[in-house]
Amino acid sequence: MRKSIITLLTDFGTKEHYVASVKGVILSINPHCTLIDITHQVSPQDIKEGAFTLANAYSFFPKGTIHLSVVDPGVGGSRRAILVVTQDYFFVGPDNGLFTLAAPREHVRQVVALTNKKFFLQKVCTTFHGRDLFAPVAAHLSLGVKPEAFGNELDSWVELDFGKPRTKERELTGEILHIDVFGNLISNINEDEFFRFVKDHPFIIKVGERTIHGLKRGYWGGKVNEPIALFGSGGFLEISVREGNAQKVLGIKRGDPIQISTKLQAPNPK
Amino acid sequence: MRKSIITLLTDFGTKEHYVASVKGVILSINPHCTLIDITHQVSPQDIKEGAFTLANAYSFFPKGTIHLSVVDPGVGGSRRAILVVTQDYFFVGPDNGLFTLAAPREHVRQVVALTNKKFFLQKVCTTFHGRDLFAPVAAHLSLGVKPEAFGNELDSWVELDFGKPRTKERELTGEILHIDVFGNLISNINEDEFFRFVKDHPFIIKVGERTIHGLKRGYWGGKVNEPIALFGSGGFLEISVREGNAQKVLGIKRGDPIQISTKLQAPNPK
Amino acid sequence: MRKSIITLLTDFGTKEHYVASVKGVILSINPHCTLIDITHQVSPQDIKEGAFTLANAYSFFPKGTIHLSVVDPGVGGSRRAILVVTQDYFFVGPDNGLFTLAAPREHVRQVVALTNKKFFLQKVCTTFHGRDLFAPVAAHLSLGVKPEAFGNELDSWVELDFGKPRTKERELTGEILHIDVFGNLISNINEDEFFRFVKDHPFIIKVGERTIHGLKRGYWGGKVNEPIALFGSGGFLEISVREGNAQKVLGIKRGDPIQISTKLQAPNPK
Repeated sequence: MRKSIITLLTDFGTKEHYVASVKGVILSINPHCTLIDITHQVSPQDIKEGAFTLANAYSFFPKGTIHLSVVDPGVGGSRRAILVVTQDYFFVGPDNGLFTLAAPREHVRQVVALTNKKFFLQKVCTTFHGRDLFAPVAAHLSLGVKPEAFGNELDSWVELDFGKPRTKERELTGEILHIDVFGNLISNINEDEFFRFVKDHPFIIKVGERTIHGLKRGYWGGKVNEPIALFGSGGFLEISVREGNAQKVLGIKRGDPIQISTKLQAPNPK
Repeated sequence: MRKSIITLLTDFGTKEHYVASVKGVILSINPHCTLIDITHQVSPQDIKEGAFTLANAYSFFPKGTIHLSVVDPGVGGSRRAILVVTQDYFFVGPDNGLFTLAAPREHVRQVVALTNKKFFLQKVCTTFHGRDLFAPVAAHLSLGVKPEAFGNELDSWVELDFGKPRTKERELTGEILHIDVFGNLISNINEDEFFRFVKDHPFIIKVGERTIHGLKRGYWGGKVNEPIALFGSGGFLEISVREGNAQKVLGIKRGDPIQISTKLQAPNPK
Repeated sequence: MRKSIITLLTDFGTKEHYVASVKGVILSINPHCTLIDITHQVSPQDIKEGAFTLANAYSFFPKGTIHLSVVDPGVGGSRRAILVVTQDYFFVGPDNGLFTLAAPREHVRQVVALTNKKFFLQKVCTTFHGRDLFAPVAAHLSLGVKPEAFGNELDSWVELDFGKPRTKERELTGEILHIDVFGNLISNINEDEFFRFVKDHPFIIKVGERTIHGLKRGYWGGKVNEPIALFGSGGFLEISVREGNAQKVLGIKRGDPIQISTKLQAPNPK
């Protein structure tokens, strides 16, 4: 028997009954599935943070995993509920951009509006679609119900603008996409993009008021309190401070720019 | 084979080894059961909060689920350890009122004092019955041991006074039962009670210094910083502030009154 | 079929994607294993705290359990990755002393350097061995891969100095090994050691500026705000304050001394 895995990512916190209610509903429909928490501590209603966290975790799960994600400021309003089917995964949640970073990395096969009430709880509370709508849909999906049974196929779905790095002459400008709990600044510049731009030229990295030279291979690779640049485990350029908090040391907030520049330090032509 | 589910609700927190030790004991007795956390962040020794959280989550789990709940300020003292068997569920924990809100909603069939040491760990530490007494009992129960094997049947068990809403003329007075992590104020007035009282009359809701008109259907249904009333996912009347914290905005604490009044706004007789 | 259990202990926190990525990797290799969190809230990079928490939890799990522990300030540096095989358990993690308190209590059979890249993820990120190296090793181990397949046997491994209680005349001096989230002070003096020293003599316990007389049987055994001594659920002498925080009341930090003295109160020779 195929072992079904359902992951959960929410902003419900872990102090209240919300997450357990969602799990109870799933297990009532499919007692044999495995439930794995990605996190329930997404900052309240922060869709972008949820999208970032999901994008960093989803691909490490086995093919066929169902990713149930609920960061849902518009619950009970007019936003749609969707299922995104990719080659390897299923994404279930509100259609508000939560899957912007994860799903498009996969081959998207099908997007379905979740409208068939047969797969919801009998009474759907307007404040808790996580429990009453998304959980039973994910559970039925884990039992092998076909995506098309949940509703009609959609042509488009909501994607958020996360900003893409821009190149101008000898400058590559990205932005800080996420600040983790340790204060590390994670940018939207990935390893491929970085090296395609930098090639073998010397470069400097500017973030806030600081200039950083070169890359380190790990968090231990700097002096205490000195900001360093490295590629983090998600493959993005990251600014870190050894035994310190880069966010505080540099005074940076999400969305602030980060610049790679090769112009002042071109290789010596001689 | 029936898949056994044991839920856990405690005030142990998730930083220390306590919860893991409880789970290890259970899995040593029944490695095939599924363990689901309700929460481990009940405020330390707050039985009422634990009772509220349990009451909101337990009924979403499959029939036969064992709810192991340990908020236990009297551990090692004279309070009894009990198993409450209802038509659909089992509740295992200290006899201190923790099951006051959940168990009576079910058909209670049997209450058993947990005294048979055969089902405890060999050495029972006076400070950790969660691990040494309740965990092994829940695990043996999940293997099919009959309730009566754990000890004698009891005629009564501890119930806490949570206050019941009172009606006086055209006023229904309840109290704030729980304040969630978002600052939402959850009252002890449920949907049935509310509408039986209000019928089709206009009404106002008074809480603290504020008066609220009408009900909203969801958290998005108000202006920013304006308190609204709605029925939350647990079925209770709740006061919320959109993008804000109702507890802070209204200066309310648990136990404070909430009043529904129809007297000033009777329907126009003309 | 043997049910494999893998526990996880890290300092990754539960807000980010790190823990889920580790679990996804494990389930991709062995979808049938049971994953149990010990904690992910070890204070960042605090190996001693991790060692203490692991030592208190590991032995309650079934024989054959794999304990995957990652508190790893030296990740990507020169520290080794190891597997410690004891009579009943497997310990997988960095060779930095994390297993100092747990493994030696068991019969250590084999220590293996984890070097065989066949069992790592294809690309090992220097900042995240938890996901790319330790997780797949633990997963393969749970499938029955023999310890020697992962690398060569080692003669020694890193052990941290936690300090051992010292006896001098009629004084036994230990130290505070751990302060839990409730502010309880847990010493390195275990029950056997204590009673071997004290025998049937009267004794006093000195910690900070305070003197404590006698032992209590549980946390309820004292006046409010008065420090008491008891043996906690881990078997160590512990200082606690009823409804209070012993750390704050006594102004104590980890590593501070605790003294048992019988000299001033020898039994009357008459």
